[in-house]
Amino acid sequence: MGGDHGPRVTVSAALHILARQSDIRLILVGDQATLEAAIGDAGARFGDRLNIQHASQVVAMDELPSQALRGKKDSSMRVAINLVKEGRAHACVSAGNTGALMATARFVLKTLPGIDRPAICTILPTVTGHTHVLDLGANIDSTAEHLFEFAVMGSVLASAVDNNPRPSVGLLNIGEEEIKGNEQVKQAARLLGESELNYIGFVEGDGIYLDPPDVVVCDGFIGNVMLKTSEGVAKMFVHYLKREFRRNIFSKLSALIAMPVLKSFGKRLDPRAYNGASLLGLQGIVIKSHGSADDYAFGKAILVARTEAIKNVPRLISDKLEAQLKRKEAS
Amino acid sequence: MGGDHGPRVTVSAALHILARQSDIRLILVGDQATLEAAIGDAGARFGDRLNIQHASQVVAMDELPSQALRGKKDSSMRVAINLVKEGRAHACVSAGNTGALMATARFVLKTLPGIDRPAICTILPTVTGHTHVLDLGANIDSTAEHLFEFAVMGSVLASAVDNNPRPSVGLLNIGEEEIKGNEQVKQAARLLGESELNYIGFVEGDGIYLDPPDVVVCDGFIGNVMLKTSEGVAKMFVHYLKREFRRNIFSKLSALIAMPVLKSFGKRLDPRAYNGASLLGLQGIVIKSHGSADDYAFGKAILVARTEAIKNVPRLISDKLEAQLKRKEAS
Repeated sequence: MGGDHGPRVTVSAALHILARQSDIRLILVGDQATLEAAIGDAGARFGDRLNIQHASQVVAMDELPSQALRGKKDSSMRVAINLVKEGRAHACVSAGNTGALMATARFVLKTLPGIDRPAICTILPTVTGHTHVLDLGANIDSTAEHLFEFAVMGSVLASAVDNNPRPSVGLLNIGEEEIKGNEQVKQAARLLGESELNYIGFVEGDGIYLDPPDVVVCDGFIGNVMLKTSEGVAKMFVHYLKREFRRNIFSKLSALIAMPVLKSFGKRLDPRAYNGASLLGLQGIVIKSHGSADDYAFGKAILVARTEAIKNVPRLISDKLEAQLKRKEAS
Repeated sequence: MGGDHGPRVTVSAALHILARQSDIRLILVGDQATLEAAIGDAGARFGDRLNIQHASQVVAMDELPSQALRGKKDSSMRVAINLVKEGRAHACVSAGNTGALMATARFVLKTLPGIDRPAICTILPTVTGHTHVLDLGANIDSTAEHLFEFAVMGSVLASAVDNNPRPSVGLLNIGEEEIKGNEQVKQAARLLGESELNYIGFVEGDGIYLDPPDVVVCDGFIGNVMLKTSEGVAKMFVHYLKREFRRNIFSKLSALIAMPVLKSFGKRLDPRAYNGASLLGLQGIVIKSHGSADDYAFGKAILVARTEAIKNVPRLISDKLEAQLKRKEAS
């Protein structure tokens, strides 16, 4: 029940999703009285598809992960993740503090055997469709082995979500040539080249949006800068487009005429449609919504959780790792 | 005389700039016969403001820097940098292989005293105007001290180019909070905080384009990914905008009507206007043009060189480093 807008948005999104997706059941976690008030009469019609789990604390958006972990044992975030741990929920969706969510999820759920570092993965729109990118900030200073783990996890996720039996995987680098890049990336390239993943080589920053492989792997520091830079460029683009269309009476008129086109364009690249990043590598499904998500965007994050629960992504990752290990032992 | 288009674009750009800027003299470096043919009759009217310096070799765009350095001692790139070294030119402008250009410039010109690592710096458009960003790929795995050097150099450049007596400096990071980031960035923040630079703290990826300080400092791997990601997002944006406007007869009509607005928008963010990255930290001025630059863009790179020559940026950096050192010794 976190995020920048609190329960107002999340409850509204929950009610809309329940109305549209009859196979979803939701447990709202947070202050019982607040949630009951937010649901009002609307909740009655969903019967036992909608429940409330009381939690007395809230993790603040700027709270240190370590503080949240130690001091907020009854936070909505912690209680929601506990529900996953106890098997009472298939997945947890949160718009709260990313660092605290990852730390809590890692502490409560534990990582999958064979995974040293969980990672955050999201879908980004591209000229050719979409791509899965990880890590987006869970890890900094990733080793080659970590990058390899990310590649395995991203590959499993892309395979499950897109029904793609053999997703292509690329490593984000500063050049496409073999000689470029830092040591971690070069060594990860060797590991991937020897693996049975569909590794296609290096991808440069522009390649992510133009013609990327199905999965793009990078260190979390770089992934985070990449993601936020993309947001910045998009916002600047929209800023100047609006400014030009508002410049004078003629440009305002042409904006009016071009409105259907501009709307359809905006819809194509609407970041809300891509909301819902996966915390991969855990013994359970946790989905991070953008903190500023609105009703529509938060609903999208719930749908990501639904897909991963149906496909049982953590189990698929486990299986893949086991197969990888057996292959290694056999060779 | 390198770049993707060879002398055709660079010679044409040179002739245009000579016609427009009466205080510029240019030496075209490359194969004498080719250059003479490219200039044709047009050259005569500039008298001794236009000269040719023969060079028998060319560095290929995909050549290894080490190979270029060892095997191409009479390349146009090497000869042009030699002209700067010998004081026969105030600056070298090249659209050639970036790695080879940096390696050759470093070998021939040497770094300034106190500079361990030269860096590549460019200007990027932002919502609030523009910002100077470095390093964009000359260095990977930069230490805190390297980041500090970049900050000093970027600050001097911004000050000289923008006539800004006290440019603000920020460090690219994955969060604005003090606790986030890798060790290099955290330590660089301490060094900058103790310096007399106008250090304002961390900047996130989106901040680069929305409301950045005058100078943004980062490791070259990250800067390169950031820059290319920005290019990718911009291209995707344009791709979908064009597609929507071409969808049907109505949208095509509205494109026609909105054309002046779209053109003026395109002009505002035209990457060609920002062409010309500075190789900072050398005992001489070297400007890198985008390999695919056209006449207009390459001319912009020549103008960047002109500004840095007038201001004598390498000397300014030297002075700043000396002042920094004295201040340190005194404290």
